[in-house]
Amino acid sequence: MKIGIVGIGLIGASLGWDFRQLGHDVSGVSRQQFTCDLAEREGICDRASCDLASLKDAQIIFICTPIAAIIPTIAQLVPHLQPETIITDAGSVKGAIVDRATALWANFVGGHPMAGNSQSGIAAFEKGLFADRPYVLTPTPTTVPSALKTVDELVRSLGAIVYQTTPDRHDRSVAWISHLPVMISASLIDACLSETDPTILDFAKKFASTGFKDTSRVGAGNPEMGMMMAEYNRDALLQSLYLYRDRLDSLIDSIEHKEWTKIQYLLSKNQAARTDFLNSKDTCD
Amino acid sequence: MKIGIVGIGLIGASLGWDFRQLGHDVSGVSRQQFTCDLAEREGICDRASCDLASLKDAQIIFICTPIAAIIPTIAQLVPHLQPETIITDAGSVKGAIVDRATALWANFVGGHPMAGNSQSGIAAFEKGLFADRPYVLTPTPTTVPSALKTVDELVRSLGAIVYQTTPDRHDRSVAWISHLPVMISASLIDACLSETDPTILDFAKKFASTGFKDTSRVGAGNPEMGMMMAEYNRDALLQSLYLYRDRLDSLIDSIEHKEWTKIQYLLSKNQAARTDFLNSKDTCD
Repeated sequence: MKIGIVGIGLIGASLGWDFRQLGHDVSGVSRQQFTCDLAEREGICDRASCDLASLKDAQIIFICTPIAAIIPTIAQLVPHLQPETIITDAGSVKGAIVDRATALWANFVGGHPMAGNSQSGIAAFEKGLFADRPYVLTPTPTTVPSALKTVDELVRSLGAIVYQTTPDRHDRSVAWISHLPVMISASLIDACLSETDPTILDFAKKFASTGFKDTSRVGAGNPEMGMMMAEYNRDALLQSLYLYRDRLDSLIDSIEHKEWTKIQYLLSKNQAARTDFLNSKDTCD
Repeated sequence: MKIGIVGIGLIGASLGWDFRQLGHDVSGVSRQQFTCDLAEREGICDRASCDLASLKDAQIIFICTPIAAIIPTIAQLVPHLQPETIITDAGSVKGAIVDRATALWANFVGGHPMAGNSQSGIAAFEKGLFADRPYVLTPTPTTVPSALKTVDELVRSLGAIVYQTTPDRHDRSVAWISHLPVMISASLIDACLSETDPTILDFAKKFASTGFKDTSRVGAGNPEMGMMMAEYNRDALLQSLYLYRDRLDSLIDSIEHKEWTKIQYLLSKNQAARTDFLNSKDTCD
């Protein structure tokens, strides 16, 4: 197929590489000529350009820009496209994207490849990044069935495990396991910094080990991405945060009332639940 | 020296091994004969017994039992000891231990080796476990200087990085970087389980990846140990939890009021602060 990719960062570049290996023709678009040159040289795209009009013959286009740029990019693309062209995106929220994108372009299918690493940008691209990873598609009652089928088959060909659900259920699920952890992890770092005794803060830094390291990791990720999670998945994230605060309050209450057996029971339940959580799929780490 | 070790689990066994390598004579005590036999066979102790009286000639004794057993163990030990014998412990809280232990035995020095792995028990012992790791000693105005000097020199000989501070400052520091992370991580798992839509819970499990995995790890550790952190470091932990809840409320408030720039600023500040936190020592991961 003739595949277009807008935004040649970690996700876009990794898609480009894999699709080329499968024999597809890949055209890339980036805002930066340097990235275009690199994408051609590295074999990520057959050709790359800063001009969205270069995608006029594409049969399917993957929008792999930051969330905030997805809708504006589609609006700029549509004057150049053939009516049968399919557009899909790679944004990590779907409710804020799908309806607006479909209003701009009927042949739109919302998507979210749940793959990545701790890096970003074209230099972080990985061959086979999507293999054995979830790739969520979020059709709505207005999604064109043939467009959904094409996107589904294409991402399956990357070795991804495809799930279909509504934009709302997608957003509420990722709020739990992706966006909420970022916020509670960020609040941990923030709270430590509120320690007013410099000696204790200094010892805390010296003693910090794997427990602090793991729990604080996602709260210190890309700040722009964290902000966009909050902005574009606000309702689902707030709902998770309210329930989280409720459970935290309950635990604080148990400690205040010295309910040690109750706390041990809670921790035992969590231990089993986490194992169940992480074993509910075979192939995603 | 003639060294006694009570409690031949991960910490006790690792101490025993290292001390024997340094030429000391090591006597172990465990409640289980099986553990005693294993400790002798593996070269962890020169001899091991279920009888505390077997330590009557020890010059220094390391109490490496769970926190709740430290004071009762010392009370049972004292009738057997020479007055010059030094007792030290390996408990992860100090305020709840040091004064009571010192009242039982004047030659007591509070200690906390900040080393370990995800396992427990004698089978988890590691050679060189304490090398380049913090080892905190918590003298008080009544601590006998020569006892402190002996413990300090012994743990330094293991390659540990020795810090000295008050029991209170120790407990408040570890509340931040060890006990608070356990509680907020446990509340994350607990909150996810409160999701009432089974489809969303099922997707959350299927989509859970490294972000959820890392943030939930310490909340699913040994339930008995988590309970003891709460019980024996209650005051410092509650103080950290109150400050944490305050920072979480502030973040929730920012999301409610759509203060996106403020959130991005917070996340940027955290990113830098975490790097500073984890770089404040050269040799502890």
